[in-house]
Amino acid sequence: MSQLTHFDAQGNARMVDITEKQETHRVAEVRGEVLMSPETLELIKQGGMAKGDVLGVARVAGIMAAKATPNLIPMAHPIMITGVTIDFILAPPDRVEIQGIVKTGGKTGVEMEALTAVSVAALTIYDMCKAVDKSMVIQNIRLVHKSGGKSGDFAREGEKTWEK
Amino acid sequence: MSQLTHFDAQGNARMVDITEKQETHRVAEVRGEVLMSPETLELIKQGGMAKGDVLGVARVAGIMAAKATPNLIPMAHPIMITGVTIDFILAPPDRVEIQGIVKTGGKTGVEMEALTAVSVAALTIYDMCKAVDKSMVIQNIRLVHKSGGKSGDFAREGEKTWEK
Amino acid sequence: MSQLTHFDAQGNARMVDITEKQETHRVAEVRGEVLMSPETLELIKQGGMAKGDVLGVARVAGIMAAKATPNLIPMAHPIMITGVTIDFILAPPDRVEIQGIVKTGGKTGVEMEALTAVSVAALTIYDMCKAVDKSMVIQNIRLVHKSGGKSGDFAREGEKTWEK
Amino acid sequence: MSQLTHFDAQGNARMVDITEKQETHRVAEVRGEVLMSPETLELIKQGGMAKGDVLGVARVAGIMAAKATPNLIPMAHPIMITGVTIDFILAPPDRVEIQGIVKTGGKTGVEMEALTAVSVAALTIYDMCKAVDKSMVIQNIRLVHKSGGKSGDFAREGEKTWEK
Amino acid sequence: MSQLTHFDAQGNARMVDITEKQETHRVAEVRGEVLMSPETLELIKQGGMAKGDVLGVARVAGIMAAKATPNLIPMAHPIMITGVTIDFILAPPDRVEIQGIVKTGGKTGVEMEALTAVSVAALTIYDMCKAVDKSMVIQNIRLVHKSGGKSGDFAREGEKTWEK
Amino acid sequence: MSQLTHFDAQGNARMVDITEKQETHRVAEVRGEVLMSPETLELIKQGGMAKGDVLGVARVAGIMAAKATPNLIPMAHPIMITGVTIDFILAPPDRVEIQGIVKTGGKTGVEMEALTAVSVAALTIYDMCKAVDKSMVIQNIRLVHKSGGKSGDFAREGEKTWEK
Repeated sequence: MSQLTHFDAQGNARMVDITEKQETHRVAEVRGEVLMSPETLELIKQGGMAKGDVLGVARVAGIMAAKATPNLIPMAHPIMITGVTIDFILAPPDRVEIQGIVKTGGKTGVEMEALTAVSVAALTIYDMCKAVDKSMVIQNIRLVHKSGGKSGDFAREGEKTWEK
Repeated sequence: MSQLTHFDAQGNARMVDITEKQETHRVAEVRGEVLMSPETLELIKQGGMAKGDVLGVARVAGIMAAKATPNLIPMAHPIMITGVTIDFILAPPDRVEIQGIVKTGGKTGVEMEALTAVSVAALTIYDMCKAVDKSMVIQNIRLVHKSGGKSGDFAREGEKTWEK
Repeated sequence: MSQLTHFDAQGNARMVDITEKQETHRVAEVRGEVLMSPETLELIKQGGMAKGDVLGVARVAGIMAAKATPNLIPMAHPIMITGVTIDFILAPPDRVEIQGIVKTGGKTGVEMEALTAVSVAALTIYDMCKAVDKSMVIQNIRLVHKSGGKSGDFAREGEKTWEK
Repeated sequence: MSQLTHFDAQGNARMVDITEKQETHRVAEVRGEVLMSPETLELIKQGGMAKGDVLGVARVAGIMAAKATPNLIPMAHPIMITGVTIDFILAPPDRVEIQGIVKTGGKTGVEMEALTAVSVAALTIYDMCKAVDKSMVIQNIRLVHKSGGKSGDFAREGEKTWEK
Repeated sequence: MSQLTHFDAQGNARMVDITEKQETHRVAEVRGEVLMSPETLELIKQGGMAKGDVLGVARVAGIMAAKATPNLIPMAHPIMITGVTIDFILAPPDRVEIQGIVKTGGKTGVEMEALTAVSVAALTIYDMCKAVDKSMVIQNIRLVHKSGGKSGDFAREGEKTWEK
Repeated sequence: MSQLTHFDAQGNARMVDITEKQETHRVAEVRGEVLMSPETLELIKQGGMAKGDVLGVARVAGIMAAKATPNLIPMAHPIMITGVTIDFILAPPDRVEIQGIVKTGGKTGVEMEALTAVSVAALTIYDMCKAVDKSMVIQNIRLVHKSGGKSGDFAREGEKTWEK
């Protein structure tokens, strides 16, 4: 079972030894969605434009979660992230799309940091809207792009760059 | 915008006042999935039966994440959870299904705790398998059942009880 | 030195025993200020009305800090806070005033939670504006009002209720 | 394997369900030791009397660790501890003895909180003295007394009450 | 609103990208005060000389808070701090002055770490004395000196070096 | 009292300044034991082979605790650990032996990280078995080997390498 690097030859979980890895610039880009009723999406939209900013709170939660990743994911290495952005697209009639980009200059990739940031942003949207809609679904959380490091770049097919 | 209770009349985010709410038994049940290649699912299956227990590590991560919920979700109340279980079903050819159940005797529901537990269990599966499969997708994280509290019970249609 | 209850008869620090104290409704209200250049205040004001919401981020940070209080203040008891609000007043030409109100139904007061919330909101304002103004001063952080508990109510003289 | 309550019938780890348990007064008393060279013990003794208070820092660390227990021990329930004391005895020629007492009014015992407090106090003593003595040993960390709760009282034989 | 670097062109909060910044030696020095009744100051003074060491506990809290800064301040980068000192001056009749110095060899400054350390030390003094004095005020928390990094040195006018 | 480097000339605790220290490869290896009844050891042994994996949960807890060390030990520096392994030996009739190895490429040693990892693994074993055995003792936690850094290597006499 040597393919799963988080286990040793005896099958015991471990934090993989990255002492010898190079420090290099690394970026990970993750996307996900919260599916909801059109009425809930409308409430979020009104809030962002006037008052009651659901997405503003979710963005702060996502950025802080990127920093908390090694405390949540058992085998994740601590890493000095050097930049985080979280963006949202309102996709009528019933979806909020979330994009998280995390950067570092360290020894290991930041996919987990970006995945955690997007997941917690999605959970925060759920929390802030659950009084009106308990049926929301968090879905399609996936790595879209990754660069830097020995394992090479990754780009998921069919994903377009978000315009700002 | 009074419908989103996490905002006051001016639209400012707040932790909702639950001082007057009753302490009562509350349960929340959440499910989600990690979609992966059949080869990755096979590796997890072998590990669980012999050595290299991905799901064992993910279960611990999920249970600990339930306790960390108020540190991650900005407007979530601290709450004394009184029980957590995380279960997995291997659904060939390409899915791991996750179920998290959280209980409390407190003043507010534990949906967020169960959603966070399942999300972090899913993220941990991703982390431990990402060396062999970067295309995994976390999907369909949803509240399945909820009981206790003034807002009444909730049961998502079409969900069957998991047999153990 | 028995007057400082956080020490025993030998002068050793301790977490005071509150096992026998009653659970009751308690509220603490704290205020503080960030003094800054008029130009910095103007930037914050523009942001709040259009984009770049310094105070929105500081509010989230303050609410989350109220929950982190027992992890920061060594002798503070863990406590289930049941509500938090953070409000701001722009006081031209050079001050942002901050008010934090924390509630609980527990065995001990929430002054420290409210003081910590206001302090961290102030620190966040500093952080987000420090690129343009390193001379800002955090000042006048004080308990304004407190009710509930055996030690009785407290109201600082000369403080007026904030109108919303 | 039903005897180990932290596992279900399938052998999966879980946080035991304590929803139905009674809230009652509970106390746990734990002791442990740090074995060191006589020279190191002398340095600690001088510090405590004059300046460089190793034990004062270790006491603060132990009290804070009691509060962090549910974040460290995977299956431990969050619990509102209501009092913590940490005491030390210098036992020449080569030991520091540590005693931690934790109280709660909650639904489950506080043995883990007291064991964690004493362990972290011992680790802090090691940290602060390791520049002069790397051979120190942390030993004999054990539950001395426990009361409250359905499982009844526990008192380890041969342990004498510490006089202050 | 490009002057507030913690926001992008759309006004969305972000963790600023510091991937390309140089690692260099950086120091930040912060001061603040707790204003209190002369009787409270006398109690602290007696404690520091005999038993009941308020300032010793506050120093530990401040040092630990420096390390917790990125968990508290949403847009603060994680950073490897390499040294922290916290000092106090008793300034009769009614003030404790606090000084915190934080060092790093990293990519961004440590003003926020020093400001947080001093704030939490001040909050801890409040906590430990609040049984005798609820009117204490935390005030005048300000950056005194800063060196290292591209933005250059900063020295607040009129501040004298503390003699030890 | 200059020998205890965690204090300044006035005896005040501080986080030692390591800004000028070199980044180099460092390893620390720590061992400890949990003493228990033969019946408890038998339960753990059965669990590891069949279901109810006490040691698997303890391993995860130990690895996560290594990362939490700077939050627990007041004067410990934050450090980027680059690898952690935790191993166990069942030593009939009545002991579980624990070994933790931590690596880093940073400016200070990782003894405290390894000591904390082993301590928390031991505490987790206690937690998961305490329903059947409250008399367990955590003992003999000691640094076995250390390399890297200016203070040179350390190897405790009489310790043999664990075979896997």
